[in-house]
Amino acid sequence: MKCAVLHSAGDIRFDDIPTPTILKPTDAVIRMAATCVCGSDLWPYRGANAIESPTPMGHEYCGIVEEVGAAVTSVRPGEFVIGSFFASDNTCPHCRSGYQTSCQHREFIVGAQAPALRVPLADGTLVPLRDKPSDELVPDMLALSDVMGTGWFAADAANVQPGSTVVVVGDGAVGLLAVLSAKQKGAERIFSMSRHPSRQKLAREFGATDIVTERGAEGVARIKELTRGIGVDCALECVGTQESMQQAIQSTRPGGSVSYVGVPHGVELNGAELFFTHVHLHGGPAPVRRFLPELIDLVMNEKIRPGKVFDLVLPLNQVAEGYRAMHTREAIKALLRP
Amino acid sequence: MKCAVLHSAGDIRFDDIPTPTILKPTDAVIRMAATCVCGSDLWPYRGANAIESPTPMGHEYCGIVEEVGAAVTSVRPGEFVIGSFFASDNTCPHCRSGYQTSCQHREFIVGAQAPALRVPLADGTLVPLRDKPSDELVPDMLALSDVMGTGWFAADAANVQPGSTVVVVGDGAVGLLAVLSAKQKGAERIFSMSRHPSRQKLAREFGATDIVTERGAEGVARIKELTRGIGVDCALECVGTQESMQQAIQSTRPGGSVSYVGVPHGVELNGAELFFTHVHLHGGPAPVRRFLPELIDLVMNEKIRPGKVFDLVLPLNQVAEGYRAMHTREAIKALLRP
Repeated sequence: MKCAVLHSAGDIRFDDIPTPTILKPTDAVIRMAATCVCGSDLWPYRGANAIESPTPMGHEYCGIVEEVGAAVTSVRPGEFVIGSFFASDNTCPHCRSGYQTSCQHREFIVGAQAPALRVPLADGTLVPLRDKPSDELVPDMLALSDVMGTGWFAADAANVQPGSTVVVVGDGAVGLLAVLSAKQKGAERIFSMSRHPSRQKLAREFGATDIVTERGAEGVARIKELTRGIGVDCALECVGTQESMQQAIQSTRPGGSVSYVGVPHGVELNGAELFFTHVHLHGGPAPVRRFLPELIDLVMNEKIRPGKVFDLVLPLNQVAEGYRAMHTREAIKALLRP
Repeated sequence: MKCAVLHSAGDIRFDDIPTPTILKPTDAVIRMAATCVCGSDLWPYRGANAIESPTPMGHEYCGIVEEVGAAVTSVRPGEFVIGSFFASDNTCPHCRSGYQTSCQHREFIVGAQAPALRVPLADGTLVPLRDKPSDELVPDMLALSDVMGTGWFAADAANVQPGSTVVVVGDGAVGLLAVLSAKQKGAERIFSMSRHPSRQKLAREFGATDIVTERGAEGVARIKELTRGIGVDCALECVGTQESMQQAIQSTRPGGSVSYVGVPHGVELNGAELFFTHVHLHGGPAPVRRFLPELIDLVMNEKIRPGKVFDLVLPLNQVAEGYRAMHTREAIKALLRP
């Protein structure tokens, strides 16, 4: 079977890897309906992390169960399923408190940019749909596996409430879906920080009321100006750099909340500075599994259409083009069809 | 009038300063019932901050209103009042959302280690008591001005709920009152990290169920052991050093909450490390004003006796001895009688 494999920075190939099989009785193997390239895949693609050996890529997936291990009881072959980018048992204390991405037995999903995938801890990880979604809704379902669940967590972790004033820092797919999530949760005013016309357009479609093109200190000043000097109730940080984190924190009113959902790269927070901002800070790898049932219902009822972030659709064997287009920001997010 | 004045590290004197008077129509002048030395006073006393000129000290106070400015309407001469260490208007957006220590017009209180004090923004800052407290309750009322309000905020900001498992890092007066606050809010298990017998005793009296003497990585390991590998729901960081902050964060379960209420000194948080802990983080200068009405009632009804942290009582002119005894940790907290 072929899969996207990263050999070194910038060098992604559609290579042979072993066909997935049941290795443990708790595994499932699924046939991919669609997969995609994640913003976080770009960090190693851009050389931010060392690549010690060829690495199978991809952790976003949905599809039809092909085979399950002997211990699997909650999903059956033939069912359409979605799971998170971290496999989780969904029974440990961390899972039970809703933090499945900190599951005591978590395993990161690898090799999803392929026609088939082994999913560990299938009972805890996979959520089966009552009915197979229409082809039209497959991209929306796929988005739930990571990018939409992460945008939703951004809004949840920043405590977005009906009437909230919100800023979203970052106009990547997660940032855009954080806008959608804030809107869905009833935010009254949503500032999207974006300089790209196509992304600004989608942000507005998802519910942004204002576009802010300034960055850094100027961005903070603009947000303060737009909030009568007070700052926002909620800042959703969807980038992961020092600048974006500072911008989120400094744009927030005392007592407001800042969420951060992308792995921080090179971010250092000064304790004394943070102290006097009086913000709430919460984030981490989005516990997508917690949100899947609710988000599946929202998609099934067409209350949300998160698949709109896929502005490039490619056959799976052209995965390298998907990385390239996202790296250059020509594409927001590339969907791959097996 | 004489007041404690810090001249240089370790050099505190009971010096002449101008007698406080009404400078603005929103001021009040109060006659001190009692005042005290704060743990935060020890930072400059120990040389952590540069002292550029002789600095009047003290920001904890309660007493009888002597005079009010023409614009003051909510307190009257003769009333017994308590206020926070930050004066606040209690009407600006930050005050209205409960963060009076981030008031848009806040002024830090200085010169409270004296027989009289000018309090700016008297209407927003001072809370009058319906009845003058008995002499016995004066230390408890004094504690509300900062140390008890700060311990209470530690428990509030860490989201302590009935049944919570809590660790308090720090056995200073704030840490001990954070134990009391966690108990009052219904925590089921409270770990106090302390190595000092007299402080351990008071921690137990205030509600600690377990004393942990280990520190750093060993302290974290002990907390994990005591919580079946899970970590606590709530960590209350009441010291302000890198070690205590790390200890609080690493002792907390994913999804749990860490509060920090002492000005951090030399604390740097790595974004990626914090990300994977999945904790909530909130803190800052305690918005004591928010809590005063509730805490005054708790003291009046003798539900709490926070004044127990005062294990040294001195006449005000011996203030230097109070600093010395707290600096050497001979005393938990020194009360000063004018």
